[in-house]
Amino acid sequence: MRALITGGAGCIGSDLAAALLERGDEVAVLDNFSSGRREHIEPLIRQPGFRLIEGDLLDAATVERAVNGAEIVWHLAANPDVKFTPESPTDLDLKQNTLATYNVLEAMRKAGVRRIAFASTSAVYGIQERLPIPEDAPCRPISLYGAAKLAGEALISAFSHLFGIQAWILRFANIVGPKVRKRGRTVIGDFIARLKENPQELLILGDGRQRKSYLTAAECIEAMLFVVDHAREPLNIYNLGGRDAVTVTRIAELVAEAMGLEGVRFRYTGGEGGWPGDVPRFTLDVTRLGRLGWRARLNSEESVREAIRQLLERKP
Amino acid sequence: MRALITGGAGCIGSDLAAALLERGDEVAVLDNFSSGRREHIEPLIRQPGFRLIEGDLLDAATVERAVNGAEIVWHLAANPDVKFTPESPTDLDLKQNTLATYNVLEAMRKAGVRRIAFASTSAVYGIQERLPIPEDAPCRPISLYGAAKLAGEALISAFSHLFGIQAWILRFANIVGPKVRKRGRTVIGDFIARLKENPQELLILGDGRQRKSYLTAAECIEAMLFVVDHAREPLNIYNLGGRDAVTVTRIAELVAEAMGLEGVRFRYTGGEGGWPGDVPRFTLDVTRLGRLGWRARLNSEESVREAIRQLLERKP
Repeated sequence: MRALITGGAGCIGSDLAAALLERGDEVAVLDNFSSGRREHIEPLIRQPGFRLIEGDLLDAATVERAVNGAEIVWHLAANPDVKFTPESPTDLDLKQNTLATYNVLEAMRKAGVRRIAFASTSAVYGIQERLPIPEDAPCRPISLYGAAKLAGEALISAFSHLFGIQAWILRFANIVGPKVRKRGRTVIGDFIARLKENPQELLILGDGRQRKSYLTAAECIEAMLFVVDHAREPLNIYNLGGRDAVTVTRIAELVAEAMGLEGVRFRYTGGEGGWPGDVPRFTLDVTRLGRLGWRARLNSEESVREAIRQLLERKP
Repeated sequence: MRALITGGAGCIGSDLAAALLERGDEVAVLDNFSSGRREHIEPLIRQPGFRLIEGDLLDAATVERAVNGAEIVWHLAANPDVKFTPESPTDLDLKQNTLATYNVLEAMRKAGVRRIAFASTSAVYGIQERLPIPEDAPCRPISLYGAAKLAGEALISAFSHLFGIQAWILRFANIVGPKVRKRGRTVIGDFIARLKENPQELLILGDGRQRKSYLTAAECIEAMLFVVDHAREPLNIYNLGGRDAVTVTRIAELVAEAMGLEGVRFRYTGGEGGWPGDVPRFTLDVTRLGRLGWRARLNSEESVREAIRQLLERKP
């Protein structure tokens, strides 16, 4: 299978590239290195069947060139940061997540590429009354990131129907792992960095009771491959996550413990969410994924522990 | 109340403008006259409190100027045509419905305008198993139009949460009335035009068994005003429609009957939907609207009859 991975130099994209090469796929990676890193794909560069295309998804001609000849597009490229900061432009996600997705779909339509797997997000759901959240919950995103991903899903849904493109929309839980992005630091990496600076005290965004579902990057890749190999509808929407959740304060405790720190004082910025657009509590209903035949081996706390271990072992 | 209506020279927008002026609001209309018509707003131009701004929503500076000073934006502007024709660009709806909506929201955020009512569509739902469709059904649009409107809803949902903008998302059934657009002819207008050309035979897109929910423009305006006046959540999503549906063949019969034609032969292009992206059967669950206190007086067939009568009385 000839695969194109957009955002293939990212934390998940580069692991996916390695997994696809491992099973014998030809892999082209398209990345603009805005949040992806060269070091993530360095081990792959000389492998047979691997190709790097440096370029931006907002440049339609580049996308057309990259898509041409592919049999499946794994569309992972996006502004990875869910947090909106008041200094940022409000159309960052619209451009990098929605318009980029349109460019991918349009290039696929033109080139006759008929399969797309899309890295979506649990952020499309927004705040839900019913937990865990099933795939058919109504989506009410509260972040620009979630809105732009939902817009991407909507485009995929229409292109799938109109142009006969088979699609897998994968709504990720929080994915944690050993790799670190150029921008958009995640909670574990943030806690480690802060505790290295000041091992006595840790500032925690929100009230610490935010409670979310986590999955390791390794298990995420496994689930992605499984769903695309086994789900056979024209449009397949799956939550990818474990069955439970961990609080942010518990993550802080696990990080401190793994760093061998005792008596760290936790300070809280207060408020329900960690930042504007944060969904303070969510677990994903993974019944559909389970019925298809895949289950995470690690629960959320074990996934977090594993990621902490990997990040601490990582060379700086 | 100082109101801005985008797409205010359209079939619904111009009636809304008249209704708002009637109740004493100041009304600015922003339109690029791509599908709106000057004749729709001519009766309003000299009324006190009315102002016309000719311009395009894709021009951010124009939008900012128009939004400034408004207390509510009625955002109706869009490419009105649900049909995708293979010759058209696939990003027409993305631009005119999604990016335009972003520009409106961003201008509102900058100007501190805190209320938006959005003309959305039942096309966001796509093909649903459960009929009638409630507002919390999962949205799987099958048209580029529906996808772009859903993307607009997603942006509104995020902006509403992040920037304290109160929003009313109104998902319209098929709206029928006496006015005619410059582009994107609706089924009734199409049948009348074809039967004027050839009173013996009528070509019907699809198998004629498409069955949809209709509401007159007059009742639609009434419902819009009612929902915005009475629904008080930060984000309010309402289906606007009647409770039942009419088949396309029945509409053809009603048009022929109203034109005094007998023995018209109906020919069908065949297939379930009338065109790629057509949702062949839908009725909207209007329980939420009913609970708020509004109910359509006309059922779908009566609405269609009324529109036929108005269109036939209309001067060419």
